[in-house]
Amino acid sequence: MKIGVAGLGLIGGSIALGLRDSHTVHGYDKSTEARAAAAARGIAVVERLEDLLPADAVIVATPIDQIVSTLEALAPRAGGAVLGEVGSLKSAVAKYAERAPEDTRIVGLHPMAGGTATGIAAADAEMFRGRPFLVVPMARTDSRAMAVVTEIARALGGELTEVSVDDHDAAVSAVSALPLAVAVALARVAREASPVEIELVAGPGLRDATRLAGTSTDLALALLAAPGLREHLASLRAAIEQLEGALGDERALRALLERAP
Amino acid sequence: MKIGVAGLGLIGGSIALGLRDSHTVHGYDKSTEARAAAAARGIAVVERLEDLLPADAVIVATPIDQIVSTLEALAPRAGGAVLGEVGSLKSAVAKYAERAPEDTRIVGLHPMAGGTATGIAAADAEMFRGRPFLVVPMARTDSRAMAVVTEIARALGGELTEVSVDDHDAAVSAVSALPLAVAVALARVAREASPVEIELVAGPGLRDATRLAGTSTDLALALLAAPGLREHLASLRAAIEQLEGALGDERALRALLERAP
Repeated sequence: MKIGVAGLGLIGGSIALGLRDSHTVHGYDKSTEARAAAAARGIAVVERLEDLLPADAVIVATPIDQIVSTLEALAPRAGGAVLGEVGSLKSAVAKYAERAPEDTRIVGLHPMAGGTATGIAAADAEMFRGRPFLVVPMARTDSRAMAVVTEIARALGGELTEVSVDDHDAAVSAVSALPLAVAVALARVAREASPVEIELVAGPGLRDATRLAGTSTDLALALLAAPGLREHLASLRAAIEQLEGALGDERALRALLERAP
Repeated sequence: MKIGVAGLGLIGGSIALGLRDSHTVHGYDKSTEARAAAAARGIAVVERLEDLLPADAVIVATPIDQIVSTLEALAPRAGGAVLGEVGSLKSAVAKYAERAPEDTRIVGLHPMAGGTATGIAAADAEMFRGRPFLVVPMARTDSRAMAVVTEIARALGGELTEVSVDDHDAAVSAVSALPLAVAVALARVAREASPVEIELVAGPGLRDATRLAGTSTDLALALLAAPGLREHLASLRAAIEQLEGALGDERALRALLERAP
């Protein structure tokens, strides 16, 4: 297939690298530097977004606040190309899909991979192998769109699961937004609570537990808009309070620890 | 130097492997299987704890609830050997040191490394390189003890910091016990909050954030006895509540995110 990738950061760059052996891939980024860096990694780049078309599919991997405008720019000239996007939350794209031109093909994708590194320098063709890869049908998703993105997700080695827009965003709230919020709070409290400078004492446990606090502020702000997050945070406070209540009671603590996965 | 290691799990095994090129190392574990596994990794093992003596130093790396009894067994026959121990909390050892025979040399050590893997199979000579390595003087720590454990910590590649017993245990409460408790609560709440089976959607973010929930129950119970943990958990609930209050207010959220390290 002929596949375009719009946005050549960590995720878009990894998608382009992961597909280029099995498909004809072109990449575009609005940043000249990102295009040059992608070209240096062997990705064929084009100078304008619309030059990604015609194609069988274009995957939009821009920052989340630019996904809808990028889809809007592509849709009128897509000519049957499947427009995928890999944003962390789907409700805004789903709303756009409802008002997109009737012949547009749009489908949500969410490979659960990445890290706090950003940019194509950290991109990796193997990033998605064996990882959950969510496919999210919406108003302009047809069978052709599903077939094309299924082939793409498989070529990247992802483990496909189809979920609705609402379930997707609720799951992201639980598995991404909630741990991010907790990491931000934990990083600050651990630092304040340690009588010894934290760099001198913290090992891999705290580092991993707070890694998500290093998420870029823009992505973090987008994730913290996930639906239900306020309720999840309240549930977490209740779970922590339950642990506090069990401190000093070995039997109660053991029961809580053994319920953990 | 001639160095004994009592307890050949992940940490003791890694210490033995990390020291054997520069020192004469013997290991002991009360488990026949652990002794055989250590021997298979090239560690010289002895059949009885007391056969680790005479030595310049013996490092006790047993489970935390057996450290004091192991020190008690070694102390009467230590003959000047420096007795180190690598338990996660030091107050019980410090209390023992105060009542130990006057000529005993005891000093606390805490390499901030490891993981949720256990046993010598996961041991690694390089585990401590570049990691914080706390040295904790107590009642029976003299200049000879400090010199010997400094040499050992350096041979393992650790970054030495000397801290008091109280500061040590308070720091561990902040950087180990607090993240462990949070991971246990987070793992449960994330699982309950996701409408999609968590294995199908969770990526590396949740995995890292909850890794400590896989700590062995016995070590977890020991860590959850750290001083001040109840207060740290209350502080964390307050920090989470502050984040909840900021949801939907970009300027307030941005301020909280940018305070994170």
